[in-house]
Amino acid sequence: MQDFEFFNPTRIVFGKGRIQELDRLVPAQARVLVLYGGGSVIANGILKEVHTALGQREVREFGGIEPNPTYENLMNAVAMARQEKVDFLLAVGGGSVIDGTKFVAAAVPFPGDPWEILLQHGRNVASALPFGTVLTLPATGSEMNSGSVIMRREIKAKLAFGSPKVFPVFSVLDPTKTFTLPPQQIANGVVDAFVHVMEQYLTFPAGAQVQDRFAEGLLMTLMELGPKALAAPQDYEVRASLMWAATLALNGLIGAGVPQDWATHMIGHELTALFGIDHARTLAVVLPSLLWERREAKHAKLLQYGARVLGITAGSEAERIQATIDATRAFFERMGIATRLPAYGVGPENLDTLVAQLKNHGMTALGERRDLTLEDSRRVLAGCF
Amino acid sequence: MQDFEFFNPTRIVFGKGRIQELDRLVPAQARVLVLYGGGSVIANGILKEVHTALGQREVREFGGIEPNPTYENLMNAVAMARQEKVDFLLAVGGGSVIDGTKFVAAAVPFPGDPWEILLQHGRNVASALPFGTVLTLPATGSEMNSGSVIMRREIKAKLAFGSPKVFPVFSVLDPTKTFTLPPQQIANGVVDAFVHVMEQYLTFPAGAQVQDRFAEGLLMTLMELGPKALAAPQDYEVRASLMWAATLALNGLIGAGVPQDWATHMIGHELTALFGIDHARTLAVVLPSLLWERREAKHAKLLQYGARVLGITAGSEAERIQATIDATRAFFERMGIATRLPAYGVGPENLDTLVAQLKNHGMTALGERRDLTLEDSRRVLAGCF
Repeated sequence: MQDFEFFNPTRIVFGKGRIQELDRLVPAQARVLVLYGGGSVIANGILKEVHTALGQREVREFGGIEPNPTYENLMNAVAMARQEKVDFLLAVGGGSVIDGTKFVAAAVPFPGDPWEILLQHGRNVASALPFGTVLTLPATGSEMNSGSVIMRREIKAKLAFGSPKVFPVFSVLDPTKTFTLPPQQIANGVVDAFVHVMEQYLTFPAGAQVQDRFAEGLLMTLMELGPKALAAPQDYEVRASLMWAATLALNGLIGAGVPQDWATHMIGHELTALFGIDHARTLAVVLPSLLWERREAKHAKLLQYGARVLGITAGSEAERIQATIDATRAFFERMGIATRLPAYGVGPENLDTLVAQLKNHGMTALGERRDLTLEDSRRVLAGCF
Repeated sequence: MQDFEFFNPTRIVFGKGRIQELDRLVPAQARVLVLYGGGSVIANGILKEVHTALGQREVREFGGIEPNPTYENLMNAVAMARQEKVDFLLAVGGGSVIDGTKFVAAAVPFPGDPWEILLQHGRNVASALPFGTVLTLPATGSEMNSGSVIMRREIKAKLAFGSPKVFPVFSVLDPTKTFTLPPQQIANGVVDAFVHVMEQYLTFPAGAQVQDRFAEGLLMTLMELGPKALAAPQDYEVRASLMWAATLALNGLIGAGVPQDWATHMIGHELTALFGIDHARTLAVVLPSLLWERREAKHAKLLQYGARVLGITAGSEAERIQATIDATRAFFERMGIATRLPAYGVGPENLDTLVAQLKNHGMTALGERRDLTLEDSRRVLAGCF
């Protein structure tokens, strides 16, 4: 096991009807800025529920945070928060709204140009406004971690930042609030969480038995419940376990003490930035190709994953690895997510542009051993068509 | 899944040689009271390492905390902490030292008679001294939770208390510090952690798929690594995964959102209080008998545990349950721990006394459904001979 430091102070409040506990969770004297996305939280009544729970507190609102939250838009929220002197933020939505809120939380008290936060990946964040979240979409794990990904539209770049200052103080997880999500959002969420686990698990053996078992447990849960969540949208138990699995997929626990990859994410980010493909869908496209390209480096873990999670134990090692990667791709497809770029209208003529963008963003040594070169990434992308 | 609230702000600092980071972890101006047990931390040099790391800070020491820490002894530490005006505690040891330190942390600022803390199980703890831990024995999970068990010698009672105020601020986990532990302490630690998981897992199905998978992962890890830890005391990877497994066995995570039993612990506490049997050994004695006594109520989970953890899938359900309980007992015995009371010099003539003590301590409705009566506990105990 590698040395690690684990710290996660976010309070999880899990269950049906628990939004009303915001009255207990948000400081009584707080001036609150509620941040949300495209308006579904208005349509389904969640925003109203939040306002009721906040009672007599001074509350302002900032809506319209995009699925890939942009720096340009969020800077308007920063201006509003400063002008209205709010001292507590409340994100109501999915990972994009929460990621955006983390940026606002760090940017409001930031002394210089907040773009510097992203350029330095959060190392320069000395303080942040406290914030809570009301999660409406199980997917990114942002509700219980200290990371955030922001897009700057004008340069078509997605940049990540993280800081212990931007852990949510609390997150309310009410599985019933996911009942009305469109199937494609559930599918995206399941695949996003699944690939989060894979990035921290499917590397090389590092003697981390507990982390491996936990990761395998999350993968089994997501594979078992993902299709059920699509088939029975109002099944509380399914949605509850899915929601908790997505949170635990990226709260630092399974990644503590193990090598991590994240090449699939880095390559996928370019697909979102250039072609607007949903984040989770880029992961479903890139991962099978990456696993195949890296099947030697990931040999032992591919066999372990195949045996323990998928029950693939017959055949030669090469056959088992092939079957394991095929089964992973088949799972994504079963969730209704295409795993080849042409399905998203992106043809091989874009290969050079994609590789050039990876180079522009410094993604020249990816993977758990930092040995995935630009040429390797080109082959991974070529395998996505 | 049941509703839950999960909150655990303890910082884990994991790896070889990390005691030296106490200088970063303990406030620079702190007046520190270092608490420890029977002196092994003097013999093996850990206490010296701690002092070196604490550098120029004002440090006092309180040694001699017992394996089952007593109220009587700890009150001397409370008096010393008050007199010396210490403002930070540092537990150096295993679960007993940490449990004792939690009591001291809560008692020092407590306005009334600190015994009230135990009588009210911590509900009356409004504040506590901050404290960290240096863990030397993987077992109880006390290094990452907010619970504590204290014995009052004069009335032969073990009482538990808990409070969010007594989470350790940090815990340093250095697996190499466990290399010199006597085999019976390692065996005790593995069994203690194993039964902690079972108390939160082996109840009835509650739709908590992630918690089940995590619990099963911990059980598999402990079963696989326990014997290896005895056979190869200096195997870092084995000790590291064992240490992390024991912490995660009782940090609130696998118990969030699920029914919990704890009858084995409650019955075991009486065996320790009356006969001085090691805590873990009482659990190894009681659990197999309790599982047998409750095999109907625990039917579904016994089958699941048998299949997923032990690979027991052949035979009738009754046969599989019998084999599952037998395999659990065999694991304890393989760890060198006797699972019958006569091996500890306790005969059936003590049955009435034990049941009377359970009654005295209000243990008349135990188990995940609060339906384990005194008569049931008598049968559980009768099955331990």
